[in-house]
Parts: sequence; C-alpha cells; structure tokens
Amino acid sequence: MAITLNDIVARLGGELSGDGSQLIHAIAPLEGAGPGTAAFLSNPKYRKQLAATAASVVILSPEVVADCPVATIATPQPYLYFARLSQWLNPPARPAPGVHELARVESPVPDSVSVGPGAWVGPNVVLGENVVVGANCTIGAGVALGADTVLHPNVSIYAGCCLGQRVLVHSGAVIGADGFGFARESDGCWVKIPQVGRVLIGDDVEIGANTTIDRGALGDTVIEEGVKLDNQIQVGHNVRIGAHAALAGCVGIAGSARIGRRCTIGGGAIILGHLEITDDAHVSAGTLVAKSISNKGSYTGTVPFMAHDDWLRNFSRLRHLDAMADKIRALENRIAELEKKS
Amino acid sequence: MAITLNDIVARLGGELSGDGSQLIHAIAPLEGAGPGTAAFLSNPKYRKQLAATAASVVILSPEVVADCPVATIATPQPYLYFARLSQWLNPPARPAPGVHELARVESPVPDSVSVGPGAWVGPNVVLGENVVVGANCTIGAGVALGADTVLHPNVSIYAGCCLGQRVLVHSGAVIGADGFGFARESDGCWVKIPQVGRVLIGDDVEIGANTTIDRGALGDTVIEEGVKLDNQIQVGHNVRIGAHAALAGCVGIAGSARIGRRCTIGGGAIILGHLEITDDAHVSAGTLVAKSISNKGSYTGTVPFMAHDDWLRNFSRLRHLDAMADKIRALENRIAELEKKS
Amino acid sequence: MAITLNDIVARLGGELSGDGSQLIHAIAPLEGAGPGTAAFLSNPKYRKQLAATAASVVILSPEVVADCPVATIATPQPYLYFARLSQWLNPPARPAPGVHELARVESPVPDSVSVGPGAWVGPNVVLGENVVVGANCTIGAGVALGADTVLHPNVSIYAGCCLGQRVLVHSGAVIGADGFGFARESDGCWVKIPQVGRVLIGDDVEIGANTTIDRGALGDTVIEEGVKLDNQIQVGHNVRIGAHAALAGCVGIAGSARIGRRCTIGGGAIILGHLEITDDAHVSAGTLVAKSISNKGSYTGTVPFMAHDDWLRNFSRLRHLDAMADKIRALENRIAELEKKS
Repeated sequence: MAITLNDIVARLGGELSGDGSQLIHAIAPLEGAGPGTAAFLSNPKYRKQLAATAASVVILSPEVVADCPVATIATPQPYLYFARLSQWLNPPARPAPGVHELARVESPVPDSVSVGPGAWVGPNVVLGENVVVGANCTIGAGVALGADTVLHPNVSIYAGCCLGQRVLVHSGAVIGADGFGFARESDGCWVKIPQVGRVLIGDDVEIGANTTIDRGALGDTVIEEGVKLDNQIQVGHNVRIGAHAALAGCVGIAGSARIGRRCTIGGGAIILGHLEITDDAHVSAGTLVAKSISNKGSYTGTVPFMAHDDWLRNFSRLRHLDAMADKIRALENRIAELEKKS
Repeated sequence: MAITLNDIVARLGGELSGDGSQLIHAIAPLEGAGPGTAAFLSNPKYRKQLAATAASVVILSPEVVADCPVATIATPQPYLYFARLSQWLNPPARPAPGVHELARVESPVPDSVSVGPGAWVGPNVVLGENVVVGANCTIGAGVALGADTVLHPNVSIYAGCCLGQRVLVHSGAVIGADGFGFARESDGCWVKIPQVGRVLIGDDVEIGANTTIDRGALGDTVIEEGVKLDNQIQVGHNVRIGAHAALAGCVGIAGSARIGRRCTIGGGAIILGHLEITDDAHVSAGTLVAKSISNKGSYTGTVPFMAHDDWLRNFSRLRHLDAMADKIRALENRIAELEKKS
Repeated sequence: MAITLNDIVARLGGELSGDGSQLIHAIAPLEGAGPGTAAFLSNPKYRKQLAATAASVVILSPEVVADCPVATIATPQPYLYFARLSQWLNPPARPAPGVHELARVESPVPDSVSVGPGAWVGPNVVLGENVVVGANCTIGAGVALGADTVLHPNVSIYAGCCLGQRVLVHSGAVIGADGFGFARESDGCWVKIPQVGRVLIGDDVEIGANTTIDRGALGDTVIEEGVKLDNQIQVGHNVRIGAHAALAGCVGIAGSARIGRRCTIGGGAIILGHLEITDDAHVSAGTLVAKSISNKGSYTGTVPFMAHDDWLRNFSRLRHLDAMADKIRALENRIAELEKKS
C-alpha cells in the first residue's frame, strides 16, 4: 500500500508543508526512516533529531515545522495522528472466512466468520459478522461475541460470557474461569462457592496475552467499553473496570474491586478487593492499593532501589521506625526542659 | 432445579423459621434477591439490610433471626451453609462421556471419561472414572488423573505428573514444565540441569487459570490435598504446599520453599526459595517473604501508597534512613552532655 | 542407560578416585542416593553429609575428597559437572518425526521435524532440522524456527517472529502478541498503534511456561543468545535482553527497556520502560527498577516483612518520614543554640 501526502491530509487533517504528491508506504522511527516513510516527533524538546532524518515526511506540532528539513504535516497531537496513519498503512491481517475442517463448531456461524483449525465452538454460541476465532480457541456454551471481534489462537472463553464488538483478545487469555471463592470449615477445609455469574466485556476492549478475567460469583464481572488490558493481568470475580481505563502488564485485581473510568494502572500494581478507585485516578507501577481512592490524581507506593549494601544499611532501619519516632519525641522533651532552664 | 426449605434443612441442617414448603431455585445476593431465591447474611453488623430483602429465605446466624421479615434458616456458619446450598443448586455442567473424534488418545480410557475435541492424551496415561479432559488439553506420557478430576480446556500436563481425585484445573494451567535450574560456566553461559522430578497433586485441589507448577529437579514438587490455588500463580521446582493452604492470584514461589498446612497467602506475594513457612501462617497480599516463618500468625511487609507528591517527599527519605538514625544518636549524646552541665 | 565412572571422566574430565568400572544410571541428591547413582556436593561447608551417602560416586571439589567414603570425581566446579553428567544420563524425550494427521501444516517441513496433533503451522514458515512442534501449538505466517528448537504443547507464536537454534519453549508461552501501545484522544479514548515489529530470539534461549514476549511497535523485541527466562515473565515491546541473562519467574519488563548481558533478575521484579541496565548487574527478587543502572553489582529495593502488628506500628511512620526529618533538623538547631549559650 502507498498513499500520497495529499491523500493523508485529505483524510486525517493537519497542515501539509512540502510536495503533496510524495508516496508513503510505511511508518518508521525518526532515526531509521528512509524515503517513502513517515516519521513523527511528539515531544518538541527532541527537535534537534529532525535535522538528520531521511523520512519523506514528519508528523509534528506546528512550532517545530521550521526545524524540519523534509516535508511536514503539522497537527496539535502528532502521536495521535501517527496512530491513525499507522492504522491506515497497517490494516490487520485477516484469515479467510469459513470454518476450518479441523474445527468443531456446534452453533450456526455467519458466512463472514472465520474459525481456525483446532478451534471448538460450543452449543448456543452467537457470533457476530466478521468474527475471527483463531486456531485452537475454545468457546463454551452460550457465549456471545459481537461483530468484528477477533480472538487470536489459543484463547479460552468459558460458558455464558459476552464480548462486545471489535474486541481484540490475544493468545492464552482465559475469560470466565471460576472466581476464587471458598467458605472454610472449622477443620480448615475449603468448600467451593459455585461461581454462577458471567464476564461481560464492552465494545472496543483489548485483552492481552495470558490475561485472565474471572466470572462473577453471583453477579457479573464487567469490563466496560474501550478498556485496554495488557498481558498477564488477573481480574478477580465481580470486578468492574470503567470505560477507557488502561492497565499495564502483570496487574492483579482482587474480587469486587471497582476501577473508575479512564484510570491508568501501572505494571505490576496490586489492587485489593472490595475497594473503589474513582474516575481518572492514576496508580503507579508496582503500587499496592489497599484502600479506596476517592479523588482523582496520581498515587504511588513504591520504594527506591539501591546498591545492595546501601539497601541493607538503610532498610534494616524500617524495623525500628517506630522506635526512631519515639526517640525524637523524647529528645524534644529533654530539649524543652533544657531550654526552660537556660 | 427447585427444592423446598424443608428439603434443605433435612439435608444441610439449620433451624428453619417460616413456611417450609416454599420452593427455592437459586441463590442471590440480599439486595438483588427475589421470590424463589435464597440469600444469606454472614456478618451480623449488616443486619439492617435484612428489612428490604425480597428473598424467600435468608440464611443467617441465630442472633439476627428476629430482624428478618421473611423465612430464615439459622446456622452458626451462614457462609458455609450458603456454599453447600449453592453447590446443591448449581451442580457443575459435565460434558457427555466419550472420546471426541477430533481428540487423539493413545491410552485406554474408561467409558465414563470425557475427552474433548482437540485434546491429546499420550501413551501410558491412567485416567480414573468420570475424568473430564477439556477441549485442546494436552496430557503427556505416563500421567495419572484420579477419579472425577476435571481439566477445563487448554490445560497442559507434562509427562509423569500425578493428580489425585476431584482435582479441578482451569484453562491455561501448565503442570510439570521444567523448573528453572542451570549451572553457570566461567564465561557466563548457562548449562541446563535436567528436571527429572515430577509434580504430585493431592485430592480436592483446585488450580486456577494460567497457573504454572514446575516439576522437581531431582525430587518432586508436591501440592497436598485440599490446596486452593488461584489464577496466575507460579510454583517453582521442589516446592511443597501443605494441605488446605489457599493462595490468591499472582503469587510466586521460588524453588524448594515449603508452605505449611492451612496457610493463606495474599495476592501478588513473593515467597523466596529454600525457606519454610510453618502451619497456619498468613502472609498479606504484596508481601515479599525473604526468610522462614517459624510461628503461626499474620505477617506483612508492604508500604502505604500516597498521593504522588506526598510519596516523593516522604519516600525519598528512605535513602537516608541510616543517616537519620545516626543524627538521632548524635543528638542524644549532645543533649546528655548539656544535661550533665546544667 | 548406564555408564562407567571411567567413561564419565574420559568425556567430562575430573579426577577419579575409586573403582572406575562401576556403572552409573542416574543422578540423585546426596541424602537419597543409592547404588548406581551419582550425587554431588557443591558447597564444601556441607562436607559432613558425605559420611552417610550411599551413592556410588560423589562429584565434589578436591579439598573434600578425603571426607568421602565412596568413589569421588574431583572437579573445581562440581555443580557444573553435575549438570553435564545429568544431561548425559537424561537425554530429552523426543517425539517421533513426522506430521500428525490431526495437525494442519501449510508450509514445507523437513523429514526430521515432528509436528504434534492439533498443531497449526501457517504459510511461509521455515522450520530447521529436528524441530519439534508440540501438540496444539500455533505458528503464524512467516515464522522461522532454527534447527533443534523444541516447542512444548500449547505454545503460540505470532506471524513473523524468528527463533534461533536449540531454543526451548514451554507450554502456554506466547511470542509476538501486540505490544501495549495506544495514543489517547482528548475524550480519553485510546487509539491503537499497530505493532509492526517482530520478536527475534537467539540461539540456546529457554522460555518458561506462560511467559509472554511482545512484538516490537516499529523496531523489534530482541532476546539475545543464551538468555534463560523462567515462567510467567512479561517482556514488553522493543525490549532487548542481553546474551546469557537469566530472569526468574514473574518478572515484568516494560517497553523499550534494555537489560545487559549476563544480568540476573530475581523473581517478581518489575523493570520500568525506556531505561537501561548495564551488563553484569543483579537485581534482587521483588525489586522495582525505576531508573537506569550504570554500574555492575547487586541492587535491591524491598521492605522487610514483620508480624502484622509490628508492621502496623512501624510502617505507618512511612507517611511521616519527611516530618521526622524536619523534626531532627529543628532539634539540631535548638541544641546548637543551647550549646552556644552553655
């Protein structure tokens, strides 16, 4: 695929400076770009990198146009523009429609749907137009997948779960496994609580590789529209994640937590159960959220790393912080006494 | 399925108050319950919620019976009773017995066993009665699965591992992959230590989605009976987890650690290797256990999170804790000197 | 398989003391060893354990030969020697070559290759000699696997990724899923950045169960030769891991981080994005690496765990560390004032 600069600004907007008939066939980073590629500069402080670029065009913000030796498209949000142009130049590969002879499908399937080899689609499943079920996926009874939803190979969806339209699920994800719910007998044995809720996933959600989303215990686990989940995230039963939240890799969310709309959660953060994070809150990577967050803003709870010997010397003090505070108070009293006398 | 209140107390005990001929067909939370459903109240401090319930019956502890406007079943452990009743009302769906035509089975299989499409069962595998091998599971040579054990789709079990009876394994779990064992050459290259042990799993264990349990290096990795493992847990080689322990999601356990019976480990905790946690110890979510725990009780090692600016101000001090302690000691000396003079 | 002690030292070196005609058929730990087995002692401080061993031979360092009642092979690196001997005694089981009738292969395959039941190999895939594709693996279009590479069952490799020779990939691993890249619109919605790079993996790499390695956004994600990745590791897009690094379970690495050669990263550590860790650095388990590491050595950033009540008392002080430092400074000033007067 190749498109002219004129075509690009006609569809995506922005102010073109330079020869609009040039053809673009790919996106590239500024430093590695060559003829026929489009690069972008999202942070004006790196404007010096523009001088050496060999891209045919650079997408950038208006104030750095003058620094660029090649054609430019100026736009207030270069990164967003780049995303849209890249989507245009890189349409996702789609397998041909049809049910593979080595698939096992127990429900009716629209002609536009593709079911790969080794996939199993159970009874009473409803698949929207253009759905792609990758090789070796398993889809339990009564599942519904909205139009244009794509499952990469090896995804497992348990019975009764519902996914919206244009949902993208990566390999190894497991949707709808039992939540972790047990009552304890007096001898310490655990009695399983049947997990009879479902997982409901809105439109335009992306779910990363090997991410797991448990079904609800009684009610449902809900992922609202536009949420983006990276790889290896664990979502417990009855969690609700608000629209357009984005969670980085390895986040764990315990049961019944509620995460607000447009929240961002950094990688490896742990969110405890039965708490609520309000809309537009941002949790840093590696932070343990042990109580609710009621005000939007950024929250952090991590410790600095140090050379091992420095760490030993400093962090051993943590066991005695309370005693240190007591010593300070005692010193304050003794000094007040001396000051009175002097 | 619908059962009367009389049937319920006849089988599960408890003291019924109200019309025993009422039919129950489902479990529901107190606030969403309607006619024909049973709800429960496990914590008496929420007794005010009883007034508005539309459930046909509420399972509760004896001291709150008087607060309930509908029929009640009084029991000292309402949550446990609820678990048992819910199991009765929600028997797990079982696929029909038989080996699917798209499965590949290289061992004899009892008639009561179900092997789903795409599953592979290797040679010398022993399957107990009523075992379910879900779609696209892979079971290596010489594996043994006890009666009534259920593997959801896409589970991988390596050669030689043994699972007990009534074990429940969720999708994406991997049992018996190689432990992480290497010797280092002087040039920094790693030489693999063959992992020749097995994984042995007792009766009534539940293993969550995408959880991984490595085979032993020389001896075996052992999960004792009744252990409950949530999703995305990593169990290293030669670990032993004592009976009826429960581990929440995203826990990581390094090689040769031993976890006692009835321990509970919170989500995201990391247990280092070659240490021992005694019976009935409880480790909080997000805690790093870097040495053995010899006494039962609860253990924690996490930091509070704060608004990001507060965190910056406070946690930067951690790099200077040792200096702070030195300053306090110096102050104590100087004050003692002044006190002597005054 | 059984080999004599004479055979062993002829091939692997070391100094034999004792009857070289004895046959060895297995490796065993010192305490559980019996006749016909070889044990090893890597740490001389445990030399007392030698007295009771029933092994036929013990591999050990020269200074403890005199403490051993049975035959010995002395070598400066007993653990490395043990690794090599164990590899000899425990050659990996290999499935028979050939493409299973329930596999679906859309590319030419050398006769020496084994493709298991349920596997799917897409178009334009290049497989080296002796490659093993386990049951239910999925291999996207254009992938290349070097000679002697082994994929255990249920591995997913996305289109275009390249693995070297003798790579070992465990079940549930996902290689080449989309990196986590989105641009944000002003209303909070996310626009996906197509991930058009690849994953390139060098020779002799091992990848653990359920580990995920994302493809690059524009350039490639690179795992250099000899790297060892344990289970459930997440590697973000455009990460580069240097040769012979070893990463323990549950490590998470954010996008564009660079990890040096021969680094070791402890379990559950989180490495943030766009930073660089130099060669031969060692990061402790559970540590969050939030900035670059420029000097080799060991680095740690974890907190001690305590009995829960002790933790409450001490760690609540962390919210007031800055105030504690201020109090110390105020005390210093007041004392200086008093000292001046006295």
